[in-house]
This record gives sequence, C-alpha cells and structure tokens, in this order.
Amino acid sequence: MKSWLPIAADSHFSLANIPFGVVTTAKFQTPRIAVAIGDHCLDTLTFSKQGGFSKCNGLTQQQLSVFSEPTLNAFAALGRSQHRIIRSYLQEIFKENTPYPEVLSTNKALRKEALIPLCEVKNHLPMAIGDYTDFFAGRNHAHNIGTLFRGPANALNPNYNHVPVAYHGRASSVIVSGTPLHRPNGQVLPVPEATTPVFKPCAKLDIELELGMFVCRGNEFGKPISVKDAEEHIFGYVLMNDWSARDIQQWEYVPLGPFNAKNFGTSISPWVVLADALEPFKTSGLPNEVELQDYLKEGKTDNIIDIRLDISLKTNQGCINNISKTSSKNLLWSWPQMLAHHTITGCNMRTGDLLGSGTISGFEPGTQGSILEQSLGGKTPLQLERGEARSFLEDNDTIIIRGCAGTTPGELVGFGECSGTILPPV
Amino acid sequence: MKSWLPIAADSHFSLANIPFGVVTTAKFQTPRIAVAIGDHCLDTLTFSKQGGFSKCNGLTQQQLSVFSEPTLNAFAALGRSQHRIIRSYLQEIFKENTPYPEVLSTNKALRKEALIPLCEVKNHLPMAIGDYTDFFAGRNHAHNIGTLFRGPANALNPNYNHVPVAYHGRASSVIVSGTPLHRPNGQVLPVPEATTPVFKPCAKLDIELELGMFVCRGNEFGKPISVKDAEEHIFGYVLMNDWSARDIQQWEYVPLGPFNAKNFGTSISPWVVLADALEPFKTSGLPNEVELQDYLKEGKTDNIIDIRLDISLKTNQGCINNISKTSSKNLLWSWPQMLAHHTITGCNMRTGDLLGSGTISGFEPGTQGSILEQSLGGKTPLQLERGEARSFLEDNDTIIIRGCAGTTPGELVGFGECSGTILPPV
Repeated sequence: MKSWLPIAADSHFSLANIPFGVVTTAKFQTPRIAVAIGDHCLDTLTFSKQGGFSKCNGLTQQQLSVFSEPTLNAFAALGRSQHRIIRSYLQEIFKENTPYPEVLSTNKALRKEALIPLCEVKNHLPMAIGDYTDFFAGRNHAHNIGTLFRGPANALNPNYNHVPVAYHGRASSVIVSGTPLHRPNGQVLPVPEATTPVFKPCAKLDIELELGMFVCRGNEFGKPISVKDAEEHIFGYVLMNDWSARDIQQWEYVPLGPFNAKNFGTSISPWVVLADALEPFKTSGLPNEVELQDYLKEGKTDNIIDIRLDISLKTNQGCINNISKTSSKNLLWSWPQMLAHHTITGCNMRTGDLLGSGTISGFEPGTQGSILEQSLGGKTPLQLERGEARSFLEDNDTIIIRGCAGTTPGELVGFGECSGTILPPV
Repeated sequence: MKSWLPIAADSHFSLANIPFGVVTTAKFQTPRIAVAIGDHCLDTLTFSKQGGFSKCNGLTQQQLSVFSEPTLNAFAALGRSQHRIIRSYLQEIFKENTPYPEVLSTNKALRKEALIPLCEVKNHLPMAIGDYTDFFAGRNHAHNIGTLFRGPANALNPNYNHVPVAYHGRASSVIVSGTPLHRPNGQVLPVPEATTPVFKPCAKLDIELELGMFVCRGNEFGKPISVKDAEEHIFGYVLMNDWSARDIQQWEYVPLGPFNAKNFGTSISPWVVLADALEPFKTSGLPNEVELQDYLKEGKTDNIIDIRLDISLKTNQGCINNISKTSSKNLLWSWPQMLAHHTITGCNMRTGDLLGSGTISGFEPGTQGSILEQSLGGKTPLQLERGEARSFLEDNDTIIIRGCAGTTPGELVGFGECSGTILPPV
C-alpha cells in the first residue's frame, strides 16, 4: 500500500500501522485524538467535524463522538470490530488510489487544517488508566536475574513456568514519553549485610524494557475472561520503561513485593498501535516445559508478537549509545494468557487498564532489557562511547526505547520512541 | 449535641459524625450523594437544589455543584477546610436549637423529600477509586503471621519497623459492603512440598480486617507530601475487608508479592467518615523501637485513631458469631506516615485514591483480624455456635465488620458495617 501523502520508507507510521494517540498543538490546547501517519498526524476531531468519516460505513453518528474525547477510552470501548472498521477506512482515505479523494487527498483546506506535522504536536497520555498491572513474562530476564541472585541452578522460582507471575503497579505515575522524572529518594541499606537503612537518593537506578497492552473492553466482576475470548479485550500496544530503583527494592520488597522501587514513574510511548496492526507479526514465543493448566491453554503456538526492540542511552555528555537489541518474542506468556490468568479469580478489567509484559531480555549482553542484567548487578559497568561507563543510570541520562515490527520498507508497524530523562533528586 | 431528628443513643451516625456516601432509591436511580444521620440519610442533591445550603457561609454556588455528582470525588477535592464548613453547617441544621429551623426542621416538604430512611436506600461505592494501595501497618498481625511461618524469634522481617511496607492493590475490584463475591479459583499446591500446582477453588479463603483511607487532594508528580502536611490530603475513612486466598497466595507470591490472592475483591463500608469527625479519637499507636528516618517523624505520638472494631461470621446455618474484637490502635504507622512514605519517591496521589492500613490484630485469640491467625494457619479451627467450626471460610458464609469510635451515648462516630458473602466458585 502506497499513500498519496509522502511517507518515508523507514517510517514507523506507515499506512500499515495507523496508531492512535492524544495531542495538543499551539492552536488546540485541549487534548484531542490523532492518528500518526508518516511524519504527520491526523487531527480526528477536525477530520470528524468536517465530515471526514462520512464515507465510513458501519459507524454511527453517536460513535463518532468518541473523537471529541480527550482520551482514547471511549474509542477503545467501541470494541475491536469498530477499531477494524475505522483503521481500514483511514487506510482507504490515505492510500494512493483512494476511492474517496474528495474527503482528504484533494481537499486542500481540510488537509491544511487536519494534517499536522508531528514536530508541532505535544503528546499526552493516550488513555485514562484505571489499573496498571505488571507481569514478569520475560523468562530470559527472570532467568538472568535469578542467576545473579541465586545461581544458575535455582534461577527460576518453582512457580515461574506455571503461573504468569505479576504484581499490581501504580497507575497514577504512568507518564508519557518525554516526561522527565526525578531520581527517587528512599530507604536503602548502606552495605548488604546491614540491618539499619539510610535515607538517600537511589544509587541503583535502572530501566526495564517492556511492552504495554491497553484493555479496550472489560469483563464483569466475577466473570473471568477465557483465554480464547481474550483477543477481543485487547485494544493495542505501547512501549514501556518500568523505571526501577534496585537498592530501594532490595530493602523494601520482603514480603509484599516492589512498591516505592517502582512507583516513581513508568514511561510509555504515546501512540497506541492497534492489536490488528500487529496481527501479521505473531509468532511463537519461548517454549514452556511444563503442562499448562487448562485455563492457560490457547491451542496454538503463534501467540507472541515479534517486535524488534532497542534501547539507547544518551549520556549527559550527549553521546548516544545503543545498549540493547532484542525482540518481544522473548516472552513466555501471551497477552491472552495474561488476561486469562489475571481474571481467573473473577477480577474485573476495565477499559483503559494497562498491562505490562515484564522485562524483555535475551541471554547475551547487548540483548538484555535492564542495566542490572547487562552490568551483572553493577559489577561490570557497561562501556560507553568517549570512555564513559555505567553500572546504573546517572543524573541527566536519557533512555530511549524504540520498537518496530516488520521489515518491508514502507510497511513498518512501529511505536516511535519511549524516552525519559533522569533529573537529579528533589 | 442533640438533634430535633430522633437519633438512637447507640447510632453510629450521631450528630457528631455526618458521614458521606452515595445512594440510589426506588425513585432516584442515578447515584447521588447523601449524609447518614441516625436511621435516615439526607439526599444532598435535593437539599442543595431547594436552597438547603443557602445559610452556609463560605460555600460558593460553583462548589455546590459537587452535590450533583455521582461520586464524592468532587466534594473530596474541595479540601478539608470546605469539608469542615459543610459538616459544621449540617450539624447546625440538625441540632435541636438550630439557628435555621426554616431550612429543614420546620420545612415539612423538604424533610419529606430529602430525608430518606436508610432502609430504603441502596449504597454504592462512594468514590471513583484511582489507585488502591494496601499497607502492612498492623504490627501485631505481622508478628502473628511471622511467628506462624518463621517462629517467634524471626517474626518480624528486618525492614518491618523501618519501612511502612505496602503493596499496590487492585482498584477495579473494590466493592461496596453487601456485594457478594465468588470464591476464587486458582493455582495451588496440592501438598506443601509439591512443585506442580493443581487448579481448584481456593480452600483457604480468609478475611483481613482493615481501615481504609480516601485521599481528598493529591500531590504533583515528583513532589512528595511531607508528613507534616499529610493531614490536609486525608478525606476520610471506611472499614475494609481485604479478602485473601491464602493457598493461592502461598504459591504465587514469590518474588513479586500477592496478586490473584487479593484481586478477586476488597469490600469497603459505604459511608466515608470525615477525617475531622475522627480527630477527637486520636491516641498513641504501637511504639516503635527504632529511630525513624526524618521523613517519617511526626513530632507527636497521638497520631493513631482509636476505633473499636469487631468481626462477625454469619454461617450458612444462620448463626452469627462474633469472632474478633480489636482496635485500630494496633497500628504502627499513622496515615500521615503512610502518605509521606508512599510519595517520598515523587509518586503522585490523586483524589479518590484508597489506602488500606493492613490487617489490624491484637496478639490474643479473639482479637485478631484474620482467620489465618485465629486458627493458627488452619490447624485449630475456630469453634462456633451449634457445633460449627471454621479453619477458613465456607461457601455462603457472611463476614460483617463493624467499627465505632467514642463511648458517649448519642455521640458515637461509627461506620455502620462492611459485609460480604462468599458465593460458591464459578
């Protein structure tokens, strides 16, 4: 598919993508929904108001009101069948031989008003997030961390291959890419064998490369989502950086898990790539050695999305270092399995709930999703350009995660980037 | 203070209380805000619309719009100074020698319309809950549980007295008192030494007696709430039952803490008792043996609210058994300390966030807030009336928690009850 709009061959936002986000501009200070395409975005409110959706069959006038909202929640709640209709329609509108040139391609006034260069928009959180849950589905990561702390023989906990392990996270501090965050202060042990903590800025500030998934439709309290029905509850995906304070975590986490070590910020990329856009990139994930409980059995193996992921670290000296390249294939559990597990107790999902995959890693240095893994717990610092090195993050370091599916030029389905800069502690 | 409205001397909803909730009636199916008083509640929307607040100084017309909302969030967001004004005004309106009899006491039409018997209303969740966090501030509980699992010498983990330990909970499944919930299914180990789980209904279903606190005003991302300012962020309190699936918890909780063991439901009482109403009942909590970090130092010891709490278990045979009596004095950390700790990393609170205290227990049988403690891990079943016994909850058991501060007849400040019935698994 080619577009009448010039789109670079290496753009993450090809016609095969059509991701949704929320933006403001100098002119429009109230957040509105937009669709990224090439190096532009389509202001869907203006587009909708000026009859842009008039040729879109299967969309009622009432459903069009979702484009007047300041978040994607109402759009998400329409459900996947409607997302499909709208995404396909926008592909029709933007394709070279569009059957409706009068809607946008030859409508100079609307193009001028509704197509905004991405460099002129400010992105906002795409969804009002209800609950945020973070899984631990990156088995190589679990193995790497377990090896660091317990040795290779006991790397994985006994429950790991059976249970999609997860913890409830903090929704209020999920931030959109580009939002800086302060290095957190907290209680840490001055030396490993100490039993009295000191209060100081985190000295082991780390990242966690993850995918995030937004729920489009929830389930009723007490009614689990079956693994077979779970796809219909998936709105789309974002990149995620689950910033982690390893020294705070080490002291606080017994017995209830990570708390302040995680709640100072979780960054996500601004454009939600719809589930349908990533459907062609499903493949097999990591094989599981154990017999699964029935509620986790999907009856198929091509259940993991293959997204190429990379992490760059931009130091305060301005050097950009690629520190990791991996793939989201490195997950043990699929999103339907995570949803089925999360709700098997009757726990209810709601539109806008966010699930994180857990850190995505390979086994080798340079393929791991956290610095903890790459620096072997801080003992072998990452060597960067210009003689710099990092055991953990320093103030004013910027982490940039990028992710993209597909390899055909002009047909990439990507996320753009998820970035964040560490400010000094307050 | 006496009221012109007949209020029983043992009513939890005396003139000294004035708790806020959200109700519907046969006539009004849209949730609206009400104030419980005696065995009635005041429909604040009708009261407000008919000029009930016309004599209330310090309240703007715009602020009155909070009573048109279906939750208490907008009211909470007004802040404690406004809550004080409104609560004092309503006390003036209801007191025997009210300076404004024409507003309600002699206004028969408005009394008939706005004062509704509590038996005719259905309660709803009082707040739209953003994030729910559960602390572990009941030190006796932590000690009891630790003794069960590790023996008395290692009952408390090394971090316990230093860190207000907490975990992020699930907000979507917080339910209002009276909402039944199903016994959850999940993965559990068939015998303690097994390494392969089975999937079955939870066999160790338990309760956790807690207090809940709602946040009225949040803090900016990256700007911690100091322990000295924290009181201004506290809206009010509810009773809480943090239902727990102990067998699911035991298998899943390493290394990230409880997840499915908790997310199938958390019950709260429907009436939010304002922070000011409980101010007279502050006293000393459990002494801490360690030197606190500065950010947790309050500079005073009367920082814990003394609320008498009790738990009843109504069996499926209909017998009501009081199984525990305790006090919220059994907390190590105050709510300001919990808020200060939660936000010290820069984590932002929002209006409507819910914090749980953690299980409140004494040391002796009959004073503990969970069945796990009372039955010594299920080994010594609780003996109930008519020869019944419980190691853990059975299907169709109902748990009723009640809580009340004060002892002077006619001046009690109570919560009513927080109840829930366990339905068979789905």
